[in-house]
Amino acid sequence: MPRILRLAAAQMGPTQRAEPRDVTLARLIALLEQAASQGAQLVVFPELAFTTFFPRWLLSGEELESYYEASMPNPQVQELFDRARELGIGFYVGYAERTPEGLHYNSAITVGPDGSILGKYRKVHLPGSVEPREGARFQQLEKRYFEYGDTGFPAFRGAESWHRPIMGMLICNDRRWPEAWREYGLQDVELMVMGYNSAAYDPNGGTTENEEIRTFHSNIAVQANAYMNATWAVSVAKAGNEDGSGLIGSSVIVDPNGVIVGQAKTLEDEVVVADADLDAVRQGKDKMFNFAQHRRPEHYRRIVDQVGAQPPA
Amino acid sequence: MPRILRLAAAQMGPTQRAEPRDVTLARLIALLEQAASQGAQLVVFPELAFTTFFPRWLLSGEELESYYEASMPNPQVQELFDRARELGIGFYVGYAERTPEGLHYNSAITVGPDGSILGKYRKVHLPGSVEPREGARFQQLEKRYFEYGDTGFPAFRGAESWHRPIMGMLICNDRRWPEAWREYGLQDVELMVMGYNSAAYDPNGGTTENEEIRTFHSNIAVQANAYMNATWAVSVAKAGNEDGSGLIGSSVIVDPNGVIVGQAKTLEDEVVVADADLDAVRQGKDKMFNFAQHRRPEHYRRIVDQVGAQPPA
Repeated sequence: MPRILRLAAAQMGPTQRAEPRDVTLARLIALLEQAASQGAQLVVFPELAFTTFFPRWLLSGEELESYYEASMPNPQVQELFDRARELGIGFYVGYAERTPEGLHYNSAITVGPDGSILGKYRKVHLPGSVEPREGARFQQLEKRYFEYGDTGFPAFRGAESWHRPIMGMLICNDRRWPEAWREYGLQDVELMVMGYNSAAYDPNGGTTENEEIRTFHSNIAVQANAYMNATWAVSVAKAGNEDGSGLIGSSVIVDPNGVIVGQAKTLEDEVVVADADLDAVRQGKDKMFNFAQHRRPEHYRRIVDQVGAQPPA
Repeated sequence: MPRILRLAAAQMGPTQRAEPRDVTLARLIALLEQAASQGAQLVVFPELAFTTFFPRWLLSGEELESYYEASMPNPQVQELFDRARELGIGFYVGYAERTPEGLHYNSAITVGPDGSILGKYRKVHLPGSVEPREGARFQQLEKRYFEYGDTGFPAFRGAESWHRPIMGMLICNDRRWPEAWREYGLQDVELMVMGYNSAAYDPNGGTTENEEIRTFHSNIAVQANAYMNATWAVSVAKAGNEDGSGLIGSSVIVDPNGVIVGQAKTLEDEVVVADADLDAVRQGKDKMFNFAQHRRPEHYRRIVDQVGAQPPA
């Protein structure tokens, strides 16, 4: 019997800093309902989906704390969880996490159609800096606001009604790091889900990158890593102009050949739906990317023995 | 002063099994001269450039031995080396190597404009099988005819007149393995060179792959890995119909953004030239892919501790 899973990428348009939380939550629920009405079984929302992308601002005190979730779910997001369970639909969502110990992570969870949390992930590849860049209109302060994720890359099984796919989560910048994908590939992953907030310019300063090239980077990273790990992938943006700072769109659903089978066309709230034949991963996993037959880890030592680049003599 | 290096991808059309070696060598020299006449300083030839792609046949004895080079250079390829030195042009070329100890490798060298061998590499990711697949018209017997490469992924410095770029070599199937690229990325590579013979169908049997998807795979693997390691890349095909077995073309020169800046249009002998600004790698290496700042090797252990995929419980 074919293992078909109907996926939805629920791209969000911009969330301004002044937008009330309940307005944003209502947008998420509207996207969820739209996806459900199209028969989607699993909806992928962006990174930090409940708020604006706050690491672009130098913040402290009450406003900064207001962006974190002390538990998941919690009263201010409960309605999304309730509506999803009513509809029998699961979802991936990114959020800022504050632990009982007071640690902060850029996190994501995947929730099953029964409301149970199937997997949790904390972002490993934090971009940006701890200290603000002087003179920059917009910051990228993820290294200031979050600890490095401590979960590693834990694959998990999706729901029974989804045909129990082996799943993996990433968050934003992680998708550009082939090590992260390979960690999941080595767990036989069939479906990767991830959300992002990616600037439509060079967030580290510099003038050589624009929306077009940044969108291209986002697409080829997901396409090639999906292909090289023979997995489906859903990669979903928060897009558009947040308080003057542009974010790319191009949320995509990608098959195990690396081919885009669904893609957002706007920079607004938008649902893209595609059917994934989970067994389509077998062509790659059994042949070209049969890791047991073809990998040579004895030659990969630099990947773990070195952090930075070291030029030859 | 800008570090500009003029690169040539010297794609070859098919080399039939019956084609005499001197005819093939004359084609290589003609491509070299064509590249030199366009001002190219470094020409990249395909994998196993001096012969047909013989691993598609089950062979033994004299014919099989005739495909290997016992030294490099040697009398039957010397003319290419001589002509290149006369023209002051360097090249990458792939060949089948037989060592004095009788070991066989799928190898490549990069030769400087003065004729010196700057680097040597033996293919790590051998595709195919040791035993022939029964009933298959064409085999993929690289695991039968070659040992796994024992060189690792050694970066080296290009010639003075090329602005001494940090270079790395791959061969064919290697380009689909992000570990191989990352090994060079961790040596701060600026220019990757590689040749290939890639079937225009599924070489492991199966009917879901055709020339179009196989060409797409080849391109996105090179594009995304060039981007994720912030390096230039030249990836060159032996293309077309060899004795009834199709090979993809699409030789490409790719910039550190992953953008194709030169691409072959035919399945024949064809030269593609492009200028590489080697300092264009800095945007990626200093920011997004500043490995020292952003990599987290403590979470990459599966990459070296595991060979094959192991699904979660």
